[in-house]
Amino acid sequence: MDILTEKFAKLGCDNAPGQESLQKQKPLDLRGEAIEGRPVDFSHGDVDAFAPLPGSFEAFKQGFEVGGKQAYTEYRGKDFIREDVARKLSAFTGAKIDPKKNLILTPGTQGALFLAMGSLVARGDKVAIVEPDYFANRKLVEFFDGELVPITMNYYENSAQAGLDLIELEKAFQSGVRLFLFSNPNNPTGAVYSRDEITVIASLARSYGATLLVDELYSRQIFDGREYTHLCAQEDIPENLVTIIGPSKTESLSGFRLGAAFGSEYIISRMEKLQAIVSLRTAGYCQAVYKTWFSEPEGFMEERVAAHQAIRDELVGILREVPGVRVRPTDGGSYVFPELPELDVSIEDFCKIVRQLAGVSITPGTEFGPQFTHHFRVNFSQDQKAASDAIRRVLAVMERYRKAE
Amino acid sequence: MDILTEKFAKLGCDNAPGQESLQKQKPLDLRGEAIEGRPVDFSHGDVDAFAPLPGSFEAFKQGFEVGGKQAYTEYRGKDFIREDVARKLSAFTGAKIDPKKNLILTPGTQGALFLAMGSLVARGDKVAIVEPDYFANRKLVEFFDGELVPITMNYYENSAQAGLDLIELEKAFQSGVRLFLFSNPNNPTGAVYSRDEITVIASLARSYGATLLVDELYSRQIFDGREYTHLCAQEDIPENLVTIIGPSKTESLSGFRLGAAFGSEYIISRMEKLQAIVSLRTAGYCQAVYKTWFSEPEGFMEERVAAHQAIRDELVGILREVPGVRVRPTDGGSYVFPELPELDVSIEDFCKIVRQLAGVSITPGTEFGPQFTHHFRVNFSQDQKAASDAIRRVLAVMERYRKAE
Repeated sequence: MDILTEKFAKLGCDNAPGQESLQKQKPLDLRGEAIEGRPVDFSHGDVDAFAPLPGSFEAFKQGFEVGGKQAYTEYRGKDFIREDVARKLSAFTGAKIDPKKNLILTPGTQGALFLAMGSLVARGDKVAIVEPDYFANRKLVEFFDGELVPITMNYYENSAQAGLDLIELEKAFQSGVRLFLFSNPNNPTGAVYSRDEITVIASLARSYGATLLVDELYSRQIFDGREYTHLCAQEDIPENLVTIIGPSKTESLSGFRLGAAFGSEYIISRMEKLQAIVSLRTAGYCQAVYKTWFSEPEGFMEERVAAHQAIRDELVGILREVPGVRVRPTDGGSYVFPELPELDVSIEDFCKIVRQLAGVSITPGTEFGPQFTHHFRVNFSQDQKAASDAIRRVLAVMERYRKAE
Repeated sequence: MDILTEKFAKLGCDNAPGQESLQKQKPLDLRGEAIEGRPVDFSHGDVDAFAPLPGSFEAFKQGFEVGGKQAYTEYRGKDFIREDVARKLSAFTGAKIDPKKNLILTPGTQGALFLAMGSLVARGDKVAIVEPDYFANRKLVEFFDGELVPITMNYYENSAQAGLDLIELEKAFQSGVRLFLFSNPNNPTGAVYSRDEITVIASLARSYGATLLVDELYSRQIFDGREYTHLCAQEDIPENLVTIIGPSKTESLSGFRLGAAFGSEYIISRMEKLQAIVSLRTAGYCQAVYKTWFSEPEGFMEERVAAHQAIRDELVGILREVPGVRVRPTDGGSYVFPELPELDVSIEDFCKIVRQLAGVSITPGTEFGPQFTHHFRVNFSQDQKAASDAIRRVLAVMERYRKAE
């Protein structure tokens, strides 16, 4: 098998969220009748249930009307928009961000992640990632010919922290890892890192001269008044640090593809060089929509976060009623990652079966680490009633496949 | 120097079109006073002079109003939009395109090019590109650790063909090249390949089992009623072929970032896997705008092409009046690539000087091949009067730097 055939074999996206409609049909062990109910796609948030930020369409319209100056921007994004975004991200995180040097606007946070990884991973480089964590992280390491060094997260252990195995992380740095990538809140568990965890990660990275890449995509949606620690604003942060974030989740602006990365000047500058050959720039007219981000009407975000917290409470309650099902309540973000008891089918098949019998799309745990063979991920940014009904249907289907003791 | 430092040093984009505002200030040999006139940015087309396709904003609005189903699409693009685009691209090119297998919607044609190259170039692979050709082509080969094999284009020789050196191309295939990438019409010269050239390229690729990647971005803007040959619709095409195209140029939809690639199923499928980790998808709401492409009001495209042909005629006329200046009239697209006589300054410095003294942005020839040290590129999709005035200012500045005989 040649290099590319091998590489792309690992990059499969048939089980990835949102790709379910492209799955090849294969015979499934379907048990019982379909369960009626409103179809729910838990693979991503429902922007019909939680609408895009107020004024986002009008901002796009203004950008379109500006014409040429908005259609073509520097690869890193329009100057005055970078100034506005830098000011707002500084205020939010506490980090110092020079809009000329430390910020790039990207096509979604995925765009930021890709550009950062492409700027930091050379073939053979050891890269530490968390398991479980966002499914694209491992694929990016593989695409850039890096060597994956997984770090365990014991997320059931202590709800006051994410549960990252810091001893493993230090060993990874000792073994030559020079880049550590993690999402906070963690995707898919919704675990938030404690201040202590963040401080130790920063200090280890400094000691070993490692680069940190922190995905804070969901950092505006923290529940229960819990403390959230922005690594970028801490003392003694490593010299090489990039934070990525965007308005696609809580703000529901995913359809515009907007993201941002901020941090070390040399990494941002590499990312722009890469952007120049990847897709030139974040769609020019869409860039105008950044102005609605962090400029929401008073009370809007508080209300939106509270609505998600209520859905979390209901779903976690439903899941915990079922014997053998385990789940850590989400600290932040819109994901839960329930663990199921032993089933007669694989988790990948279970997800396909659920789609057919219950009209519900869920993402198999194995997308987030090969060991998560009993987990699935749910994005609960949905209509609350539809979401709880759908979870009940998933659990009803699950009972048909529960392995006999 | 480590691998990435070396790689990104080659990826410089300071002289790239549109990046002029980020150039570091360095002392220039400025001669004489600034020449007054309306500033013109020849680094890209002016969408204020040639507006986006009629109905494009309204199509976006409808996409936004559809909501969730339009915000989140398959990575390769929304199914019914792929069906529409496949039908229209089939009608335009004559190629058979199955919207399920042979087509991916991408963030601009640049996005298509990046995904295709990322799917086809492994480290060490020999890749043939034309000199001159689009500046990103060489950068992509370098980014993916390929080995560049340049093929000469003798574009002054015979205006009935592009002038590709087909003997060099065959030697390249003999030496192990398995991928040939070229733009037709050629960027930056505007030369269109003759039917004979296209037939020979296709036949050589077949013989040597090579893959072809054809950039047809400007293929809807052909002048003088000249014949244009779509390689994808020829008999005896190679098994592995991808054509890329998009509505960013003649259609002025660049601000939405829309492109497309069609061709071999396995390459399109790889491109989608890569898209899944690059930026997920072409911005969902923007995808709704594809419906205006190839659905222009009657006579719209003919008029737009004629307007560009008139600008070409005027600019070529002005350039040819000047002793020592050489230019091939554009067959298709919005570029001219004039060659200047010997100057006292480098072409890169000349471009910076022109920006300061004449308020005109032009792109140095060296972006298109290291040997083009006396050329610059102009995108003449501009207001006609502003463009001809600006070219006169460029030539007036040029006289101040003409080397004494």
